[in-house]
Amino acid sequence: MIAVLRSQNIYYFVVGTLKRRCSSSTLFDGKVDRYGGITVDLQKSHLDSPETTFSDILKESLLSWRKEGRKAVWLNIPVMKAALIPIAVKQGFCLHHSRGDCITMCQWMDDGSPSRLPLYATHQVGVAGFVLNEETGQVLMVQDKIRVSLWKFPGGLSNPGEDIADTAIREVYEETGVKTEFKSVISFRQQHNHPNAFGNSDIYVVCRLQPLTSAITVCQDELLDAKWMKIHDVAHDVNIPTLTTRICRLGICGMVEGFDKVDIQMEKLESIYRGAFYKIYHRPLSDKYNYM
Amino acid sequence: MIAVLRSQNIYYFVVGTLKRRCSSSTLFDGKVDRYGGITVDLQKSHLDSPETTFSDILKESLLSWRKEGRKAVWLNIPVMKAALIPIAVKQGFCLHHSRGDCITMCQWMDDGSPSRLPLYATHQVGVAGFVLNEETGQVLMVQDKIRVSLWKFPGGLSNPGEDIADTAIREVYEETGVKTEFKSVISFRQQHNHPNAFGNSDIYVVCRLQPLTSAITVCQDELLDAKWMKIHDVAHDVNIPTLTTRICRLGICGMVEGFDKVDIQMEKLESIYRGAFYKIYHRPLSDKYNYM
Repeated sequence: MIAVLRSQNIYYFVVGTLKRRCSSSTLFDGKVDRYGGITVDLQKSHLDSPETTFSDILKESLLSWRKEGRKAVWLNIPVMKAALIPIAVKQGFCLHHSRGDCITMCQWMDDGSPSRLPLYATHQVGVAGFVLNEETGQVLMVQDKIRVSLWKFPGGLSNPGEDIADTAIREVYEETGVKTEFKSVISFRQQHNHPNAFGNSDIYVVCRLQPLTSAITVCQDELLDAKWMKIHDVAHDVNIPTLTTRICRLGICGMVEGFDKVDIQMEKLESIYRGAFYKIYHRPLSDKYNYM
Repeated sequence: MIAVLRSQNIYYFVVGTLKRRCSSSTLFDGKVDRYGGITVDLQKSHLDSPETTFSDILKESLLSWRKEGRKAVWLNIPVMKAALIPIAVKQGFCLHHSRGDCITMCQWMDDGSPSRLPLYATHQVGVAGFVLNEETGQVLMVQDKIRVSLWKFPGGLSNPGEDIADTAIREVYEETGVKTEFKSVISFRQQHNHPNAFGNSDIYVVCRLQPLTSAITVCQDELLDAKWMKIHDVAHDVNIPTLTTRICRLGICGMVEGFDKVDIQMEKLESIYRGAFYKIYHRPLSDKYNYM
């Protein structure tokens, strides 16, 4: 339903997010950002004859935004209004991403320059637990259910918003029932076009974990088997991928020379974004330099 | 156009990706994956009266897949057929992601268990160049155009498929005109709900780069200014965020005690996925352990 409000001889048209004074036509109202862009949220708009109305209003709005010198336009389209998407494509919009029940499209308006719009997330983050029992020299290994020949460290993808260390501890527990404590990051890997990442890249982080329990309960949904293996056997097994044997060799170095030789330490710091924190990872830095 | 083929008294219905024998109705044909799921690609399908046809065929197909014990169904919907999305939602599908000109929806079919479908990418990866001239003790700093009080290392988001080191070198050159060579990773940070990441997480990697040139050409689009600063001044500047001062302190430690005390080294290794390579990052490991 389109409501027409009259105020001071200027007509205001209100169609959900539409609310803009104009003489002859209705325009979308949007939220201006600090980069010179504008975002229109169609979540709550009520268009009577959606396709036609949307097309006309979008056309007029684009003309107006162009006049104002807007550099970019973002459209948030709720999933049940996805029929509007092809109309937006015809007016120059591209898909940017989908998240939850919303599809986001965008258009770079600054014709004279290449688009500087940021891309959506490009990486998944997987975390493995390198669970090393220093007393027995054993490391916790699991056997994949799909690639049955593959023995590897327990691990899996981070949930949204989950810290690397927490993923490692959770995945080890879910897959093997072994409780652990985070000690350090030992290594990370970047791989592009990862086969299980929808064409995206993969960052795989290996955390050194100290086991707090030893009894194994194999997760039947995901694994064929799980067991403690001698770290020297894994380090020399030619059937085990290089990344895994490399980590074991770093682990052996740590057991012989001390883990300060192999650890990448973690610290929680306050962000420049008020109220936010992050985890920083780097080589241990002595107080001499850190508090100079 | 629906073509009906008759063969051995069984009717085949061909509507683009539709190609399945059945007695009374047409079913979507899909590609089965190793995880017990099936993917239907609507990119090339030609539906005469799209909405009705799609709804009916999808309903019948879901019944059939359920009978077959399929655990998951994926739908790839080209952007110009986005009107099909709300129909799929009514039959239990959710948005998964969009990529290029395609929107992917999914449905977990194994009602007795929680969904184990992998999520789409959750992280953006940003890379900064810590460009340190060891002879002069100066580091390359840039002044942000939006947060004008902020001096930081040059850097930016990785392009899809771009290696961390290549992002660092490219961004430093684009922003300042300084040519550099990759030496090591010094640190990385994980931050969730990053304000510029569409609600996603951010991994920010700092690479140590050696400058090959020193003249600065400031990128006017992105920066207010850029200059070489004394690393000790940056390390002690209370107006500069902790992450930046921390990196400078690590750099000072490296200059005094050797960069083997702070570097995280990079190596290219062959993946278990045929023909693919990845970059692995960890503390330097002596041959004694690596080739034992």
